Amino acid sequence: MLARSQAESNQLTDANENSRFLPGVSFPSGLRVSSDISQVITSSDLIIIAVPSNSFRSNVSLIKPFLSKGIPVLSATKGLEIGSNKRMSEILLDELHDELHECVCVLSGPNLAKEIIAGSPASAVVASEYPDSAEAAQDILTSATFRAYVSRDVVGVELAGALKNVIALGAGFCDGLAIGDNAKGAFITRGLAEMSRLGVALGAQPVTFAGLAGIGDIIATCSSSLSRNHYVGEQLAMGRTLAQISAHMDNVAEGVNTTKAAYALSKYMNVEMPIVSVTYNVLFEGLLPKDAVSRLMERPVGFEQ
Amino acid sequence: MLARSQAESNQLTDANENSRFLPGVSFPSGLRVSSDISQVITSSDLIIIAVPSNSFRSNVSLIKPFLSKGIPVLSATKGLEIGSNKRMSEILLDELHDELHECVCVLSGPNLAKEIIAGSPASAVVASEYPDSAEAAQDILTSATFRAYVSRDVVGVELAGALKNVIALGAGFCDGLAIGDNAKGAFITRGLAEMSRLGVALGAQPVTFAGLAGIGDIIATCSSSLSRNHYVGEQLAMGRTLAQISAHMDNVAEGVNTTKAAYALSKYMNVEMPIVSVTYNVLFEGLLPKDAVSRLMERPVGFEQ
Repeated sequence: MLARSQAESNQLTDANENSRFLPGVSFPSGLRVSSDISQVITSSDLIIIAVPSNSFRSNVSLIKPFLSKGIPVLSATKGLEIGSNKRMSEILLDELHDELHECVCVLSGPNLAKEIIAGSPASAVVASEYPDSAEAAQDILTSATFRAYVSRDVVGVELAGALKNVIALGAGFCDGLAIGDNAKGAFITRGLAEMSRLGVALGAQPVTFAGLAGIGDIIATCSSSLSRNHYVGEQLAMGRTLAQISAHMDNVAEGVNTTKAAYALSKYMNVEMPIVSVTYNVLFEGLLPKDAVSRLMERPVGFEQ
Repeated sequence: MLARSQAESNQLTDANENSRFLPGVSFPSGLRVSSDISQVITSSDLIIIAVPSNSFRSNVSLIKPFLSKGIPVLSATKGLEIGSNKRMSEILLDELHDELHECVCVLSGPNLAKEIIAGSPASAVVASEYPDSAEAAQDILTSATFRAYVSRDVVGVELAGALKNVIALGAGFCDGLAIGDNAKGAFITRGLAEMSRLGVALGAQPVTFAGLAGIGDIIATCSSSLSRNHYVGEQLAMGRTLAQISAHMDNVAEGVNTTKAAYALSKYMNVEMPIVSVTYNVLFEGLLPKDAVSRLMERPVGFEQ
């Protein structure tokens, strides 16, 4: 595991745990921590980048001199870059030399970290334009409790993972307003439909949104009290402001930034995304969650598709 | 509301509530109860049949002499007929005179009854081969809190509503075994995929399974403690037998019979349905839910689709 500094590396090694994000969970015995980028990267068979989306590009630029052909570079980050609205694999393609493009992989799926740490069974999708890279990552990631499926739909897998956080915020509104499971089921269904519409406009396969990275992740996220995005939505619905909520969270809720990027992308691509729009209005323009839900309920009915 | 006998009609009218299934909830002021089939059917603008699947055919044969063209007949039953494995609209087509076939409609979606009674917002899909009938039913059903969308995919809407009860039983296994939300998300995703496979083989549109009658209903059912099917699955996972559980339930869990019918249909159509299979094994052949879940987890990984 690559630490950002010698001091952080020492602290992590001495504590034998990540005291900030996972207090009380000891590192597995095989894990070694170092801040020596060259040493960490060149001794690894698989590079997993799991940092917030807003520091993804800077982290990639730090490690890129040490990457080499044949070693997959896998993004586990579920978000979009603010400003460019790019997916994490697009950042990798921007930053990495052409001959390393075949290393680029992405991972997404219903993977609440605390459950994986507890040894509960989980599954995910590894996508790459290059099947050899996806299969190499699959081989390393698959275990008795973790199943990795491969896919070639990089755009779909990444967008599903990122956009589901926006839907989780909205599902949090539903739970915070206590409007019931019928409404929440309808809300998530409409959310998935608009994610899929944007994805298809950007080149994704619709079937990906019906898979683990889409429905699977949405169900896990929206039914779990472990989701930060769902928590933020719920707290907003209960009357707190984004600033108040953020002040008490150690970790950014990716859905907040992703809402901004998804809102921009939907305008740019001219794709109707009513849930993304009202979530944007709630987060950044003061719309009340109850008015957001009413606005969605008042849309005209007609044919379902 | 059509009661089965004069005595039942009197009892319901006197109590002004359905004491057996909805104690404490008064009937709306406009509701009238009668056991006079002719009078009830001929004075109605929309006939809604909402009886268990195993008494659907006998109920239809009682009312059919009094039906007339132009009045939609809508099935709200989510199940398949044991033996014939037919959908409820197929029973209607069997039983009704050809000139009434255009009246046949079906309703499905995330509609937990107790939430609708409480006035919480909900939505559903009305499907018919005949858009005029679906739209007539839609007009009558739509209210400030209930949104009805129309569809022409009768096969898809009915199969989604029926098969989701099998998946709810299985999701109950996951919750009863406390294996976590990651596994539950994956389980429901795979369940939806196999429902969709069978549906497509039988002529349904895949997009219906991504809509309110599919994903929407599954999410509501599987996240709710109000679902009988989910309850049965959970109790089985906690070690009780189907006989023990059924003895304490006033209402049949449709998913139990639907599992039998879906298992037969999957064999007949040669469609692989691993979740239906293991659920069948648990319900009728003594497989333990924990072994059912392990059996699903041990299937080979590869491409997601």
